[in-house]
Amino acid sequence: MRRFNKITIIGVGLIGGSIGLAIKKRKLAGEVVGVFRHASTLKRAMRYKAVDRGVMDIKEGVKDAGLIIVASPVRSIPHLVKEAARWARQGAIITDAGSTKAWIVSNAEKSLKRFKNIYFVGSHPMAGSDHTGVEFARPDLLENAPCIVTKTKGVNKRALGIIAAFWRALGSKVSLMNPAEHDRHIAFISHLPHLVAYSIAGAVPEKDLAYAAEGFADTTRVASSDPSLWADIFVTNKRGVAESVRAFERYYKRIMRHLAKDDYKGIVKALADAKRRRDKLFYGK
Amino acid sequence: MRRFNKITIIGVGLIGGSIGLAIKKRKLAGEVVGVFRHASTLKRAMRYKAVDRGVMDIKEGVKDAGLIIVASPVRSIPHLVKEAARWARQGAIITDAGSTKAWIVSNAEKSLKRFKNIYFVGSHPMAGSDHTGVEFARPDLLENAPCIVTKTKGVNKRALGIIAAFWRALGSKVSLMNPAEHDRHIAFISHLPHLVAYSIAGAVPEKDLAYAAEGFADTTRVASSDPSLWADIFVTNKRGVAESVRAFERYYKRIMRHLAKDDYKGIVKALADAKRRRDKLFYGK
Repeated sequence: MRRFNKITIIGVGLIGGSIGLAIKKRKLAGEVVGVFRHASTLKRAMRYKAVDRGVMDIKEGVKDAGLIIVASPVRSIPHLVKEAARWARQGAIITDAGSTKAWIVSNAEKSLKRFKNIYFVGSHPMAGSDHTGVEFARPDLLENAPCIVTKTKGVNKRALGIIAAFWRALGSKVSLMNPAEHDRHIAFISHLPHLVAYSIAGAVPEKDLAYAAEGFADTTRVASSDPSLWADIFVTNKRGVAESVRAFERYYKRIMRHLAKDDYKGIVKALADAKRRRDKLFYGK
Repeated sequence: MRRFNKITIIGVGLIGGSIGLAIKKRKLAGEVVGVFRHASTLKRAMRYKAVDRGVMDIKEGVKDAGLIIVASPVRSIPHLVKEAARWARQGAIITDAGSTKAWIVSNAEKSLKRFKNIYFVGSHPMAGSDHTGVEFARPDLLENAPCIVTKTKGVNKRALGIIAAFWRALGSKVSLMNPAEHDRHIAFISHLPHLVAYSIAGAVPEKDLAYAAEGFADTTRVASSDPSLWADIFVTNKRGVAESVRAFERYYKRIMRHLAKDDYKGIVKALADAKRRRDKLFYGK
């Protein structure tokens, strides 16, 4: 893995901070610089030593960096990629850490056309939790986590290789995929569960919460995630979300239909099919 | 708390086994006897010392017991309550550990009319996991767990008091409730999350599982639960399940409607309302 002179992280929260800590731990850069919007988060990130240096000015932050990682909320990413490209040095590679890809990558590629010798490759390191903020960052957050790197027609092959190697150097399991494909897959295993968890938490009458046990806690855990982060994700992956919701609807309507007809065997089969699929993943059965 | 000469547990799996271990630990009975359907589970329960003695014959098992607990799958409970009552001594109290109550309690009360001086009180100790079987039983499973005890018109007040005191003695937080009320509340915080978790796990294309991370694991954890146990629960609480599914549907359709109209603020608000409800429960915010 090549070592960068300077890596800049724009947006140092849970993910950006964990990336910073991991780069430092693995000594992948001479210097890790964070770019912040608020003095308070800069202070916090420095307290947690997530980056070596923090600045509030994007121009100063990206100057001379070989690698720039935009780890801010999804909807802000295309704009920040463009800003970063304006001040980046020749040959710099820019990537992101956003949870949707088609919208981000097409916008980023479009705006980077004006900048010669500055390259964008989309990434989605798949780690996180219902927590946000640099205080939850951990140097091992991305270890063994899946990370999808987007491969498009226009992508620079050398930059793609460097970005894939970078995530691998942090311990992530990298897959290449085109952005639309990414959005379809991730809708099912991430966006749908979030939408559904929010909907359970929103639907339950407040007085019933007193009886909630572990099953409820688990099923709705991700509904404690940041609402604007997730609104960003939903609006930038409308098609993927809608497709996964339709498949989900078909499944629960199948169960409800069996239930209405007192078709006990039909219910057991639907539940058993679902259990088999989940157990295969988690218990290797 | 009164000490029983003999307590009999019919069905010694995760819940029945945990009850047995807790009774023994707290010395609430002279003897704890388990009634089994299969020699193999009897053997396993003895290996884990979940009961003092195991028998395959319900008549022998319930003989002279002051308290009989039916901790078998929901649909088998009314029949086993009746069988237990046939051979129980005068003054015996029977309870259960089923996850739905209206169907169980009305059937149990009906069949107990023939038996003078034998009392039934419905219970729902709310603990468990996606695991089943006595090998997962723990003496502290019910500690600090909610336990709902059903109060009906026909219930014997003395028996009700004894059952409530029994669960409290195991460390559970007891609430009294009528069976229909129980089923409505529990549909929202337990049956709905299970139905939804099964439906996510069932809907996700198998190839996408490779990218599943912690959020997916949590949201679908309860979909690894036993399909027949949960089919039993759904068919005996059709009304509660249907009502909670309707409320859930309204909520996610609200989000989808905002999404279709690109109403970003509307999405954020729906997610924030849901998050607030969940955070209140788990973080006391």
